[in-house]
Parts: sequence; C-alpha cells; structure tokens
Amino acid sequence: MTSKRKPLRSDMGSSDATRIRVQGMDLMHDIMGKLNLGDFAFLEIQGRLPTPSESAVFNAMLATLVEHGMTPMAIATRLTYLGAPESLQGAVASGLLGMGTTFAGTSEGSARLLQEALTNDMSTPSDDELTALADSLVKKLRETRQPIPGVGHHLHKPVDPRATRLFEIAEKHGLNGRYVRLMQEVASAAERALNKPGQLPVNATGAIGALSSEMGIPWRLCRGLAVIGRSVGLVGHIAEEIRNPIARDVWEQIEADASSHVQW
Amino acid sequence: MTSKRKPLRSDMGSSDATRIRVQGMDLMHDIMGKLNLGDFAFLEIQGRLPTPSESAVFNAMLATLVEHGMTPMAIATRLTYLGAPESLQGAVASGLLGMGTTFAGTSEGSARLLQEALTNDMSTPSDDELTALADSLVKKLRETRQPIPGVGHHLHKPVDPRATRLFEIAEKHGLNGRYVRLMQEVASAAERALNKPGQLPVNATGAIGALSSEMGIPWRLCRGLAVIGRSVGLVGHIAEEIRNPIARDVWEQIEADASSHVQW
Amino acid sequence: MTSKRKPLRSDMGSSDATRIRVQGMDLMHDIMGKLNLGDFAFLEIQGRLPTPSESAVFNAMLATLVEHGMTPMAIATRLTYLGAPESLQGAVASGLLGMGTTFAGTSEGSARLLQEALTNDMSTPSDDELTALADSLVKKLRETRQPIPGVGHHLHKPVDPRATRLFEIAEKHGLNGRYVRLMQEVASAAERALNKPGQLPVNATGAIGALSSEMGIPWRLCRGLAVIGRSVGLVGHIAEEIRNPIARDVWEQIEADASSHVQW
Amino acid sequence: MTSKRKPLRSDMGSSDATRIRVQGMDLMHDIMGKLNLGDFAFLEIQGRLPTPSESAVFNAMLATLVEHGMTPMAIATRLTYLGAPESLQGAVASGLLGMGTTFAGTSEGSARLLQEALTNDMSTPSDDELTALADSLVKKLRETRQPIPGVGHHLHKPVDPRATRLFEIAEKHGLNGRYVRLMQEVASAAERALNKPGQLPVNATGAIGALSSEMGIPWRLCRGLAVIGRSVGLVGHIAEEIRNPIARDVWEQIEADASSHVQW
Repeated sequence: MTSKRKPLRSDMGSSDATRIRVQGMDLMHDIMGKLNLGDFAFLEIQGRLPTPSESAVFNAMLATLVEHGMTPMAIATRLTYLGAPESLQGAVASGLLGMGTTFAGTSEGSARLLQEALTNDMSTPSDDELTALADSLVKKLRETRQPIPGVGHHLHKPVDPRATRLFEIAEKHGLNGRYVRLMQEVASAAERALNKPGQLPVNATGAIGALSSEMGIPWRLCRGLAVIGRSVGLVGHIAEEIRNPIARDVWEQIEADASSHVQW
Repeated sequence: MTSKRKPLRSDMGSSDATRIRVQGMDLMHDIMGKLNLGDFAFLEIQGRLPTPSESAVFNAMLATLVEHGMTPMAIATRLTYLGAPESLQGAVASGLLGMGTTFAGTSEGSARLLQEALTNDMSTPSDDELTALADSLVKKLRETRQPIPGVGHHLHKPVDPRATRLFEIAEKHGLNGRYVRLMQEVASAAERALNKPGQLPVNATGAIGALSSEMGIPWRLCRGLAVIGRSVGLVGHIAEEIRNPIARDVWEQIEADASSHVQW
Repeated sequence: MTSKRKPLRSDMGSSDATRIRVQGMDLMHDIMGKLNLGDFAFLEIQGRLPTPSESAVFNAMLATLVEHGMTPMAIATRLTYLGAPESLQGAVASGLLGMGTTFAGTSEGSARLLQEALTNDMSTPSDDELTALADSLVKKLRETRQPIPGVGHHLHKPVDPRATRLFEIAEKHGLNGRYVRLMQEVASAAERALNKPGQLPVNATGAIGALSSEMGIPWRLCRGLAVIGRSVGLVGHIAEEIRNPIARDVWEQIEADASSHVQW
Repeated sequence: MTSKRKPLRSDMGSSDATRIRVQGMDLMHDIMGKLNLGDFAFLEIQGRLPTPSESAVFNAMLATLVEHGMTPMAIATRLTYLGAPESLQGAVASGLLGMGTTFAGTSEGSARLLQEALTNDMSTPSDDELTALADSLVKKLRETRQPIPGVGHHLHKPVDPRATRLFEIAEKHGLNGRYVRLMQEVASAAERALNKPGQLPVNATGAIGALSSEMGIPWRLCRGLAVIGRSVGLVGHIAEEIRNPIARDVWEQIEADASSHVQW
C-alpha cells in the first residue's frame, strides 16, 4: 500500500533543533527584525522578496482591506466571540467566512479579466489596442449578462478615493503598467457602453486587481489578500469588543425586533 | 420595542462618499503608503500607532508566527481548498480553527501568568523580588498540576532560537522590561523546581507573551497575533498548492492507509 | 436614526418563561418525543411537517450524505481537533468548509437543472417531452462546456448503488415523479451524446437533486442537506478520534513526506 | 522515510465499486430506508445501533438543540450567507463557531461532573449516597469558584420545560438511572447551598448531560450533540433567509447605530 507513492513536496518551511527555514531563508537572521508583515506576506505568496516599490504598493493594497467599520463580517466575529470567547480563532474564522462573492469577489474578478485579456502577445500594448480591448471585454460581459468587475461604487462617488490613492502610490513606484492602463480603459469603456460618463471610475477592488496583476499575483489569490487584511481587522474588532462589549446588545436588539410580531 | 435601546458604539471605522476614517485617522492620507501591515495591526489592536521600537518588535513577533511548514493547520487548509477552491476564505478559516490550546494557547498562557503577577504594586521590581515571584508562580502551577507556560520545546533544544532572536531585538529597542525579566526568571525557576538545569529556556511563545505584555497587549488578544500571522502563512500554502497541488495525494494516501485493514 | 426602520421578522422560533415555540409548534408537546432529527430538519427547511412518505425518503437522502470514510473533510476535522480539542465546534466547522463545488456541488447542480427546466408549463410532461427536454439540456451544457450534473461516478460503476436504492425507496413511497423521470432521461441523453452507453447512470447526488425537487426543496438548499448529514458524520469521526487518535500520526507522516527533500 | 510507519486505522466507512460499508453495516440495505437521521447519529457516535428506547430519548435530546430563534449563531449564519451565498457550508460553519462555553458548554460540564463522580464503585448508589455525593460536588465547585453546571435558567422559570419533558420521555423508556438521579440531587444540593429553594432546577443542558451519561456518551462529545442539532437549525435559518431576507437590514441597522456618534 505504501510502496509506490509519489513523494509529496512542499518548500514553505522546515525546521530542525537549531534552525528554521522559511521559503529557503533563515527565519531568525533573514526575516525576523528585517521584514514587516506585509513583506512577509508577499514572500509567502510569491516565493520571493518584494522590491522596495512592490513592498510599498503591496502594503498599501493590504491597508485598503483591513478595516471598514461595522461590516457583516465584523458583526459575525463579535457575535461568535460572545458565544466562544475561549476560541478567538473561531471568532475570526466566523467573520472571514463572509468574504465571498458579495463583498470580496470583485478584485478576483477584475484581476481575472485583466490577466486573461493581457496574454503574452499583448506585452507592450498601444493605447489604441487597450481601448479596443476594453471595449471588446465590456461588450462580451454585457452580452453574457455578467457584471463589469472593478468599476463604480454605491457609496464612494464620484470616485473611490482608495483607488485614486492606490494608483498614485503605484505611479510613484513605477508599477502603473499595462494592467493599470487596461483597468482604467475598462472603466471608460463601461461608462461609454452604459452611457454613464464619469460615473463608473475604477473602484478599490479594481485597483487591487490591477496592481496584483502588475506584481504577477495570480487572480485566484486576490481574495487571499482580502482575507489577510481582514483577519487583521477582525482581531481589531475583538480588541474593541473586549474593551467595550456590544455583541450581547446587538443580539438582543435583533432578537427583539425579529420576534416583535409574535402573539402568544 | 425600539424605544429605550442603549446606543451601540464602535470607533473602528466609518465612511461617507469621499472620506474613510479608521481609528480616527484618514485612511488615504495617514495610513495607505505610510503604515506597513504589521503597524496597521498594532493600530487596530491598541488603538494607537506603534512607536518605531514597538513597530520593530511587533513585526518580529508576528514574523515568528507566519510559517512552520506542513502543520496540521496547513494540511487542513489545503484539503479544504481541494474541496472548495471557489471559497478561499473557507480554506483559510479551516486552518485557523486549529489554532487552539495545543498549538497557540501557550503565548496566551504565559502573557496571562505575567500580567496577573505583575500588578501595579510591582511596577519596578528588584531582581530578588522577581526571582521570588517566579518561584512562587511555578510552585503554585505545580501544586495545581498546570503546565508551566512559555518554557521548553520538544524540537528546538537546548534553546529556542526564535526566543533568543526576539529578546535580542527587544533589547536593541529597549523593550526588555519587567515582563521579559519575569519570564526569564520563570524559566529558571522551572528548571530548579523540575531539576532540569539548562533544559527549560523561554520558548517562542513565552517570548511573545512577555513582549506582548511589555507593549500593553491584553493576554486575551495574544492568540489574535497568532491568528493574524498564520492567516498570512495559510494563504501562502494555498499559493503553493495552486502551483504544485498535493492535497489530493495527501487525501488518497491517508484514506488508503486508514482502510488498508478492511476485508470485504 | 432608529425612527423609521423596517421591522425585521423571523418565524423560526420564540420563547417565554414557560413556553418554547418552533415553526409555530410547541417544542415540548409537538416535537420532542415525536419527531426524529430528519423530520425536524424537514420542518426547519420547509416550514411544515413531512408526510410519512416524505419522512422516509428525506431520511434516506440524508443517510447517503453522513459517512464516506476518510474524506478530506474528515481528515481536516481530525487535524483541527488535534489543535483545539476544547473547541469541538471548530473541528466540525473546519471539515464542513470542504463541502464546496468539488464534492457537494453536484446535487445543487442537478436540482437547479431540473427545477429550472420543469416550469409550471411542464407539470405533466409526456415521456417524449422529457426525452426531448433532456436532449436539449445536455446539448446546451455541452455547448457551454459545463459538466452534466448528477451522472456517472469515478468509483461506483457501472451503477451508483445509492442512487438505485434512493429511487427504490422513492418509488415505494410514490415520490418518483417528473423530476426523477427527467433526471433519468438526462442520464440517458448524456450517454447518447457522449457515446457511453450504460456508463453514465444517475449517481447519488443526481438522485438527491431529483428527490429534493420532488419534495419542493429549492436547489439553493440542496447543499444544506449535505451539510446537515456531514455534520453528523464529522462528529462521528471525532468520536473515533477520541477512542483511537490518529491525527498526530497523519500530520507527522505528511510533514515528513513533504520535507523529505530538504537538505540542510 | 516511509518504512516504519505505524499503520493508520479507521473503521468509520469504506467503499469499493459496488459496496459501501458504514460502521461495519451495508449502507444501502441496513441503513438507508431504515435509520432516521438521529439513529444514524447515535450509530456514528457510539459505533452501534440505538435500542428503541435510546432512539426515542436520543432524538428528543437532539430536538431540544435544533432551534432557539434569532440566536447569535443564527444571526452570524445569516450575515455570512449575505456575504457568500455561493458557500452555504461557510454560513453554517460561521454560526456553529459560536457554540462555545457561553452557550453550549454546560451540557459538557454537567456530563463531566456526573461521569467523573459516578465511577464503577458507584454503580448502584443508594439515595443517601447520591445526596451526600451531590452535596460534596457542590461544595467543591463553590470552593473553587466554579459555576454549578446544568441548573437554573435565566429565562425558563421556575422550571425549564425542556428538562421536564426530557426526563418524562426518559422515564417512559427506562433511561432514568443513576446519572439522572445524581443530576437532580445536584440541583437540590445547589438550592440548599445557595439558599434558593425551588429556584435552581435541572435545566435542559443538565438533562442532556445526564441522559448522555445514561447512554454511555463520553462528556467530551456532548457538545457534538449540540453541533449536530444546531447545524440543522442553521440550515433552517438559511431557508427562511432565502424566503424572507433580513441580513442586509440587520447589518445596516447595526452599522448605523454603531456609528451614529461619528462627527465628520
């Protein structure tokens, strides 16, 4: 039964009595005291250290994903912490599970759109080529009744200030390449196609999808950036919940409301 | 029913059309492009920015928690990703749920021991006071048959190199105060009490418990640092699983082994 | 702020000092001692009690979903229990999270296919109408390169004995209506279209999708049946893990294998 | 590396092309169409079929755990479903994670108390022995400042009607043995010790702890019964959420309340 197994292999990390190696590097000497958590996340995902420019942009991307106030995820985490305060990991997990298609799927979607469109043939596209490509992408999405990922925002109007800031940081560090350009063209094409001039700018998830693509992060991992950022934020909500507990009041208000029609 | 509700309150973050505020700061101008992810985690948990010294030590602490190779958590994450690749958040959550008392509880335990022992009366303890306090803590733990948290390691002998490095970084940044001293005294007291000289040095979780205490992080949140760090590592394992899938082989090997005794 | 809120409403259950009402029924007198767990599940999902025939078929459907040996979900649950034995709920949750598109999506898929195809116009379809409908469904799936849900099985050949048994129980209880007939026609149509005669019979998830449809369970809830059944099975695996622990060995074997190439 | 491994072993289930075996039984012929879901749960946990009396009592126990209206767990599940409707399994997992010490720990606690107290020496205790044992258990709990598990209820006064009904069903089926008697003595001893006559009757979780003990279910698995029951209830809440969505309103109300103090 055990004779002909294909050997499993992982290169993430290994240890012996005196050494700990992570991604081929010495944890104590190469990482601790040298890499901040965002840079370590880049190393874990990409298998190499970020350049200083990548470090700046990547940490800024993660920063947009940490905290959005009392989201459904934060409420779920607080309610779960109320029930199982001895299992902080469960409270964080409970909130992370809400990072699905409704809230976290769009950076994945925009990264996929960009990465599947800009194949190797399109390594140095002209402006006209990008405009034409964006028009054709938007047309195809509309024909198949799919949403256009990464553009517009229900609250942040007329522009999403996070996208503006992310592109500004990317430009400063020379990471505003063809994916950023295509994402902006997609937004313009969407505005033309839907006749909503100036109303569908690139949003934060579109910017993150574009910048992930610039750094070579596969679209399948974009949701992972949101999960990393939000796990930080959800631990923050538990910290506030410990200082100022509100979960029991949340529960009691909702329960009272939801059963106020009950006649005994 | 809704008339006399106590107002809920959270100060984590809020937004309007053009502004996003996090912890009282402007996300775009004060955080993005300025704070790395570790510093943002400090801000979320403590409600204030870290000093440069705190930033260095805090990021180093988080770095010890990210990656330990093919842990039970990493295997669970990979197996869950095999079953639900469309829900990356579920795969990370699945692995985080293993961060319980077996693996992640000891930094919590050592932080609690230190924080409950060093009350305000003991704000500037002498060496003799700390030694006596450590002896009495170890005595009490042994009488109630509780493990001594934060000392010794089954693999990393004679010392845990992560603890050595953490204390070195803390010393460099002046964060080696009374909690670090007490933790080291607890290790010495344990060695005396159990007659194991040189065999129970402070381990990584003991160092993290002590340094969390130095920075004023409540012991109830220490597991949160492990959860933050490990969420980064588990996204890393998914990245490797996408490049080089092994989860199906893991499953098939274990299933074949576990049912090899079955006679039909 | 609180003035004009739409009242929330739920009719799942409510309590006062002496009474507990669930789905409009008295928990103590109408449910406890009268409903088995499967019937209670039907009540929770459908908001009404099952008929005796529905009870028989529904419990049989759930029974197919409880236990499949050492699945990825069972391994994840055991590894998580190793790390956090104090949080049994986390170990079960960890395993449930693997119930995604790879393993649990197909009953959802077949139920959706059937429910979207058999609209009210098709309330009493003839055999010829069902055959034509099945051919057109298979054709459309193949054109859009989607898998045909609910047919064939990699292990259970030439037939899936669970499907055979489910249809037998359904027939005995008169629940083999138009959805069951269409599902069987889809299998035949798939065999014709792919030229695999006798090789793509309805599998267990196809049968569950069809029988859920017969009972009026929306396709969006079919995965819920799998989650209910599997939560039972995963608690069973924890029971065995307590009697005969293997999770640590699983971990050590996989870790050793995965790092056997490491050269220090 | 693979040479001297201890073989792993599980007896939960196994399959080949035409057969599926669960707990040594034939799934198609011995289980499907014969066992209801509660009986299957008993089989999975205990490794044997329940007697008819055990089946009646066990299903009644599970029935008390399924549905309690708009609990924190139900709210978390609905909020998570809002964020990730494509991952129903994540929404259920999110809610299950709140089944910790606050809400689900007490049946575990009472079962542990009873099982550790009634050793083999106490296989046929007299009434006087049980009274004395109960007094000593309560005394010891109070001395170590631990809560007395399984007695009293904040809402259900003067008695918990679920406990009354469970004991009634157990008596009818002859399962009211020494554990039930001791649990009732513990309640009386608590009332004496705290001078609260008639105010600390056995509650639902105390009854479940006692009846689990009667059937030989280890205390470590008692929380598993709650997890099984509640997974049914949480799927029920998703069913109602699909029919009548309220999660978005819950979120918006809580978010508005929590940030109503914000001054821009």
